[in-house]
Amino acid sequence: QSSVTLFGVVDVNARQVKNGDTKQTQLGTDGLSSSRLGFRGVEDLGGGLKAGFWLESQVQADGGTANATRFWHRRATVSLMGSFGEVRLGRQLDPSYNAWGAYDTFNTNGLADLGSLVSVLGSGADTKSRIDNGVNYILPSNLGGFYGEVAAAPGEGTAGKKYIGTRLGYAAGPVDVSLGYGQTDASLSTDDKLKVLSLAASYDLKVVKLFGAVVQSKYLSQKQRVSHVGVIVPVSTAGKFRVSFANSNLSGTSTTGASVDANDANQFALGYIHSLSKRTELYTTYAQIKNKGSSALSVATVNGYTIKAGDKSRGLEFGVKHSF
Amino acid sequence: QSSVTLFGVVDVNARQVKNGDTKQTQLGTDGLSSSRLGFRGVEDLGGGLKAGFWLESQVQADGGTANATRFWHRRATVSLMGSFGEVRLGRQLDPSYNAWGAYDTFNTNGLADLGSLVSVLGSGADTKSRIDNGVNYILPSNLGGFYGEVAAAPGEGTAGKKYIGTRLGYAAGPVDVSLGYGQTDASLSTDDKLKVLSLAASYDLKVVKLFGAVVQSKYLSQKQRVSHVGVIVPVSTAGKFRVSFANSNLSGTSTTGASVDANDANQFALGYIHSLSKRTELYTTYAQIKNKGSSALSVATVNGYTIKAGDKSRGLEFGVKHSF
Amino acid sequence: QSSVTLFGVVDVNARQVKNGDTKQTQLGTDGLSSSRLGFRGVEDLGGGLKAGFWLESQVQADGGTANATRFWHRRATVSLMGSFGEVRLGRQLDPSYNAWGAYDTFNTNGLADLGSLVSVLGSGADTKSRIDNGVNYILPSNLGGFYGEVAAAPGEGTAGKKYIGTRLGYAAGPVDVSLGYGQTDASLSTDDKLKVLSLAASYDLKVVKLFGAVVQSKYLSQKQRVSHVGVIVPVSTAGKFRVSFANSNLSGTSTTGASVDANDANQFALGYIHSLSKRTELYTTYAQIKNKGSSALSVATVNGYTIKAGDKSRGLEFGVKHSF
Repeated sequence: QSSVTLFGVVDVNARQVKNGDTKQTQLGTDGLSSSRLGFRGVEDLGGGLKAGFWLESQVQADGGTANATRFWHRRATVSLMGSFGEVRLGRQLDPSYNAWGAYDTFNTNGLADLGSLVSVLGSGADTKSRIDNGVNYILPSNLGGFYGEVAAAPGEGTAGKKYIGTRLGYAAGPVDVSLGYGQTDASLSTDDKLKVLSLAASYDLKVVKLFGAVVQSKYLSQKQRVSHVGVIVPVSTAGKFRVSFANSNLSGTSTTGASVDANDANQFALGYIHSLSKRTELYTTYAQIKNKGSSALSVATVNGYTIKAGDKSRGLEFGVKHSF
Repeated sequence: QSSVTLFGVVDVNARQVKNGDTKQTQLGTDGLSSSRLGFRGVEDLGGGLKAGFWLESQVQADGGTANATRFWHRRATVSLMGSFGEVRLGRQLDPSYNAWGAYDTFNTNGLADLGSLVSVLGSGADTKSRIDNGVNYILPSNLGGFYGEVAAAPGEGTAGKKYIGTRLGYAAGPVDVSLGYGQTDASLSTDDKLKVLSLAASYDLKVVKLFGAVVQSKYLSQKQRVSHVGVIVPVSTAGKFRVSFANSNLSGTSTTGASVDANDANQFALGYIHSLSKRTELYTTYAQIKNKGSSALSVATVNGYTIKAGDKSRGLEFGVKHSF
Repeated sequence: QSSVTLFGVVDVNARQVKNGDTKQTQLGTDGLSSSRLGFRGVEDLGGGLKAGFWLESQVQADGGTANATRFWHRRATVSLMGSFGEVRLGRQLDPSYNAWGAYDTFNTNGLADLGSLVSVLGSGADTKSRIDNGVNYILPSNLGGFYGEVAAAPGEGTAGKKYIGTRLGYAAGPVDVSLGYGQTDASLSTDDKLKVLSLAASYDLKVVKLFGAVVQSKYLSQKQRVSHVGVIVPVSTAGKFRVSFANSNLSGTSTTGASVDANDANQFALGYIHSLSKRTELYTTYAQIKNKGSSALSVATVNGYTIKAGDKSRGLEFGVKHSF
């Protein structure tokens, strides 16, 4: 009687991570795509109107855990859809994240996740990728290639939660480009905001697909610009290489007044995906981050070792991603 | 091969709540019906005997959370059913709650939840609506309109858990009336009990449906009587209004010896429901609670503000409820 | 579109447990089989290759809870399967547990769980039955009755997690026998290991099925040998008795240097299962543990009473197990 679609991903890999001089063998998850279990459905209400729901839980298959604080971490929404577009209420991805996340050559997952570089600059913002209590309006899909969304979330008395943001884009033929902006109130008592502006694009030449993104974040007197370029190269019907490079450029001063100009980092990644079917893929990824100044970013955590300023971080993973 | 029914509700609303002089805009859930995800099934064992299971999880779609301590908060049971009725084991709604909850004009949900008034009077009882470790016997449905259930739960060494209760009712044509009683051991070392007695009824005149309930709770030398009247008025095939009034009347003395006679409260609520389909409804509810004496009840919490004795609490919500 | 199988068990019982002189009436779970909810699927990749996933959550139906720290406590894996066997990645049962757990007359569940006797000897090993971050290779099923698996888990910087183990067995006609070995690193700084060696068998004579197992655990200078014999006797098409006896024999000295030679225990259990269908069973089990020396094992916990050295522990449960 109910029209529910049950879907999910289980993506597990074996990997070795080395931060500084400390190496660790691990089983990791989500090298290619985020492991999840979800339930969704759409009801046709007639007259072009539809209602839908979407519940999506994060799965950490290596250790059998779910998200400890938000079981429906990935998405919990109800929607009304029609010729006007979609109004979507609940926890969900936010537009200013989608605006650059969709152009990460490594799909914001695994050792080469572009999100490893993008910082909230000490603002405490809890909106880097998703918002709680979100109201999102999404444009309809028939606007001649133009698309967009605008979302807001009330703070509900918690710092780092109040958000407003938008994404506007254009996709036609090989081109897909989008512009995003989002701002999050860092404090209940001041007007201090984390502001994230991004421009990103992909261009699909079939023999290669190119990716590029610039994400600029500002908080108080600190600024970060993350630049990303990458390419996916299909080499057979089943196989494709991925290569990406990204740079994090900090400038200004931190909340303690110290200059952050020297604290930059470079990320380089190389990967290969072999499809066994549409639903099942094998993959390998090598990624490294070179930290400068007091930057201490990593491709993944080495348990028991806190990465130090200037440490190099490297990792290599081999995995299986199965979706259902 | 398995005969499982997957079902659920996602109900999210935008609302404004004002407690005392502090106003807050929020995304809320469960204005019309409790958000949930469930799995249930029935197996025919032959000879009129059936076995069934029911697992039902609470969903808080606004922030993507589940119940932090009891994932299957709403229900986790196994049942044997036959001409004798049903024996149901596990966590479940208790009879003395069903006996009045089923007659709340606002369905014990949202800003106008009648349960906001009903107190456990400082007894620490964890049985207001549901019991852990419950054994419930439910009468068969062919008793000429009479129905009933009786349930018990062992304390298992925890105060506020040991429960025994019953509900007896009669439903025929437009009339549905039931009587409930439940008692919960407040302590492991004394015989002190929270006792809840209720009488409630609904009468469906088609042009309007009337609701009435009286819930009387006693603990030590404190007594509460909650009285509720309400009406649902269909105004079109798709629309209906809901109006309710409820009063909480405290008497006697609290555990500190202070008189509670003055600590009464009144709840008033007005709502409208517009059905887009059987499964999808839009709704709006306005509710207010006027606190007297040191009563400090609220229609909903304003994060960061603790409601004070005598504060007025008001809220207005607009929402979508989608079931599947 | 997706080929997911939803499955589970809800097993709830009413029981009385008496530890020492303290008796408690409880609702318990898992007297016959572990309550669970799971999702699994297999995809045919062609050429004899298959991919599969398995997510299985623990359900505690009496109180409506799930496992608080690992939602997918029972299993979270992705697999590749072919003529070579199966490679399975993620959280899962470990081979050295399977090697004796599969031969417990009471199915490692309920008051008579053989696992109540098997100790990790203070090693802190978190691998008694399952491993996090497991890589498991399972032999194919066409080896003339021989079967086996070998698994490893990296420690990932946490003591008690690093594991390697194997199970080798032979099953043909009425006979099933297996040998298991597993070792777990107890510490990050030393080479101290918990080592578990087992030999177990079952023999199905149709009129009775016999079970036997010996599990020998070693940690530092302490050794435990658990011996188990049992029998299942079908007495009708629907009914069968189960009887088992087990002994825990400790020897050597504990980490504090004290002799543990006297701290033995005996477990005796008697049960009956009545099948209402393939999916639904009623059962009753009586079990007792007699503790000697400073042994303080129990058939189940009595909340509010910590069992003392030498206490006798007894329990009787009546339950329903329904699978779907």
